[in-house]
Amino acid sequence: MTESTDTPAAAAPEKTPTENGTTETPPEETPDKATEEKEKEAEPPKEMRAVVLTGYVGLKTVKIQKKPVPTVGEGEVLIRVKACGLNFQDLIVRQVAIDSLPKTPFILGFECAGEIEQVGEGVTNFKVGDQVVALPEYKAWAELVSVPAQYVYALPSGMTALDAVAITTNYVVAYLLLFEIANLTPGKSLLVHSAGGGVGQAVAQLAKTVDNVTVFGVCSKSKHEALKANNNNIDHLLERGSDYTSEVRKVSPEGVDIVLDCLCGEECNRGYSLLKTMGRYVLYGSSNIVTGDTRSFFSAVRAWWQVDKVSPVKLFVENKSLAGLNLRHLLFQHGRADYVRRAVERVFALWGEGKVKPLVDSTWALEDVVEAMQKMHERKNIGKLVLDPSLEPKPKPATPAKGKSGKEKKPAKESSEEKKDKETKEEEKKPEENESKDKEKESS
Amino acid sequence: MTESTDTPAAAAPEKTPTENGTTETPPEETPDKATEEKEKEAEPPKEMRAVVLTGYVGLKTVKIQKKPVPTVGEGEVLIRVKACGLNFQDLIVRQVAIDSLPKTPFILGFECAGEIEQVGEGVTNFKVGDQVVALPEYKAWAELVSVPAQYVYALPSGMTALDAVAITTNYVVAYLLLFEIANLTPGKSLLVHSAGGGVGQAVAQLAKTVDNVTVFGVCSKSKHEALKANNNNIDHLLERGSDYTSEVRKVSPEGVDIVLDCLCGEECNRGYSLLKTMGRYVLYGSSNIVTGDTRSFFSAVRAWWQVDKVSPVKLFVENKSLAGLNLRHLLFQHGRADYVRRAVERVFALWGEGKVKPLVDSTWALEDVVEAMQKMHERKNIGKLVLDPSLEPKPKPATPAKGKSGKEKKPAKESSEEKKDKETKEEEKKPEENESKDKEKESS
Repeated sequence: MTESTDTPAAAAPEKTPTENGTTETPPEETPDKATEEKEKEAEPPKEMRAVVLTGYVGLKTVKIQKKPVPTVGEGEVLIRVKACGLNFQDLIVRQVAIDSLPKTPFILGFECAGEIEQVGEGVTNFKVGDQVVALPEYKAWAELVSVPAQYVYALPSGMTALDAVAITTNYVVAYLLLFEIANLTPGKSLLVHSAGGGVGQAVAQLAKTVDNVTVFGVCSKSKHEALKANNNNIDHLLERGSDYTSEVRKVSPEGVDIVLDCLCGEECNRGYSLLKTMGRYVLYGSSNIVTGDTRSFFSAVRAWWQVDKVSPVKLFVENKSLAGLNLRHLLFQHGRADYVRRAVERVFALWGEGKVKPLVDSTWALEDVVEAMQKMHERKNIGKLVLDPSLEPKPKPATPAKGKSGKEKKPAKESSEEKKDKETKEEEKKPEENESKDKEKESS
Repeated sequence: MTESTDTPAAAAPEKTPTENGTTETPPEETPDKATEEKEKEAEPPKEMRAVVLTGYVGLKTVKIQKKPVPTVGEGEVLIRVKACGLNFQDLIVRQVAIDSLPKTPFILGFECAGEIEQVGEGVTNFKVGDQVVALPEYKAWAELVSVPAQYVYALPSGMTALDAVAITTNYVVAYLLLFEIANLTPGKSLLVHSAGGGVGQAVAQLAKTVDNVTVFGVCSKSKHEALKANNNNIDHLLERGSDYTSEVRKVSPEGVDIVLDCLCGEECNRGYSLLKTMGRYVLYGSSNIVTGDTRSFFSAVRAWWQVDKVSPVKLFVENKSLAGLNLRHLLFQHGRADYVRRAVERVFALWGEGKVKPLVDSTWALEDVVEAMQKMHERKNIGKLVLDPSLEPKPKPATPAKGKSGKEKKPAKESSEEKKDKETKEEEKKPEENESKDKEKESS
């Protein structure tokens, strides 16, 4: 068994599950269900909250539901989740019929961090109480998740769960792009799209650990001021949707050594044309296939159809490289968990050296996931969007405004500050958690 | 001016050139011409022997001719050639109508080493007497060549001209393939075609400077014994023309991390299919377009037509890379002479560390160039084929056997030994050359 299931925990067979425990958010329980819940209170909870995708049409299909606590199979660990990372891939899952998507309903999420609560048979490298981050194949956005140990990584001493989800996916992708695929060396130049996003920020930061590297970053004009204020890792900020290739050529007439493209579609051709000789174009995402609010099969087809196929003979004549990186496929289809583990270890070591400083855009309650996803969809985040199952949802307005725009949203900072207040309270009421943190520090 | 010309040296305008000085090999001079030659003896020679391509059909178009000594333009140096390197590219030039080939007749050759005899205006980094290797755009196979200084590299102390032509092109290509493009790191595996050739041997040798690298080499069965006896840089020797992909998968079921392909054609598709995830396929030659004795436009078309075009989306889905390396284009079309210079310097440093040990197959007189090219064409060489303008041609049989096969050829070793004998004699008669060698050692 390598997957957690939605059946009740095997350790407690005496408990009959509710009819798959589906409760929608905001949780408005019927009187009957409320009674059922009360009856359970005397016993340890066998249910958990989770972010569930109930269908492939629109944001309304993302719901918070009660789900049975997952069982822990052989080779798995059960993690009590403290923080979940949002990645662009989550939007793609929600919207597009790509290969091998699970049938709805299922729990969303590819990244979470927390504490190990139970260890399955055959797992020797983890113990209860370990602080870890995990990259499971779905199911990460819940209070508890059962994950094969091969996708679980121990946190170095001093790294919080929030740090961990802001670091792991983004910096592992950035690390593999720059140092495994593009072979970034001193004096080179690179262009990265979605420069304000989690991976974009990680790329710019890691690129600047190499001497004399020039970074061109493309993102919405609205982010430019904030990015300039935040750091100076990006040498040339260019505007998404503008004729940025001309802007690049004004600075560097011969183009750039490396193009990192997470957009796909016509950006592939544009990126390739921007390459210097001996340059590399790397496609590591296809966010251009996410365009509207609904399942966008046609935008996926268009994005892929726009991409010119290239003959190796052309690369030979032009001295260029093309590459692709897909972390999910690497882990779940190509069986390269060990390879990814080495990259995670390298990234954590860079964090230890102070070279990785993750940027968190904002932290959200599970119940506010739709708003967080919408923010990513509209590319308004700067840095990582994080879900925290312990956070209280934002108070909803008396008459909910269900417009398309996110204009009525509160500034992201408030959400994070809310979380900080809460953390302080939690520390007061949960001394046993701090104990286990100390244990971890001793062992590591 | 960046090119030497076939007009007589500007320094000696009083001399009228012969009618382009064409004398075929073996040089059987007419009585008139012999008289002409005698008249010149009193003055410094204004002509030189060169390997000239006189047409694009068959081996008979390669001739030894007398040509005027080239002029030295601004930014150029005139080199007295001691050794010329044969590269597969020379065969492609001879046979195939690829882009931007010069009109015949022209002097062949892309690689030579020797001593600087004259320095053009504006050249500050070389002086008369410097021992150098050069990668000119044609014209390298002659007694003298004028080369833009940007394509000329000073030899490190102790490196002979023979070493230099055995090292420069082959190891620079191997270095760029392994360390710039394929990013070879410990534990990886690679497959290289034409494993017995100059680049193949350089690749295997440089690959083994990295820990725990597994090298698969494909070449003619006839070379296997000699290669095994010569070194053990190739872990698994596979037979050209066999189902080598199955053989690779017996050893490494998941394939290899790196495929280096100098063949093109259907080997492109086969090479790509052999890649592990995160693997790289690099095309660095197209020797499959050289098939017969005559200009083979159709085999070029076939070789390129057989190559599947690949979408970057496929690379993204499969976590793979495609790349091309073309040293000539890098130097002469893409203006990356500085980039190549850094690679040359790195390779010479590796030679200084004893990590580069060039393998010379055999050394030939200019007059025996056709036989040398035929040996490369038939892929019978192990290591580098070198021309030495100071060598006497081999004695020709009384009745020359003009068969297709090279069976009546002498073993290559004899030719090299001949050269060694000659070197000893030359040392006796040319003390000034040894003096300048000593000078070079002092200055470097």
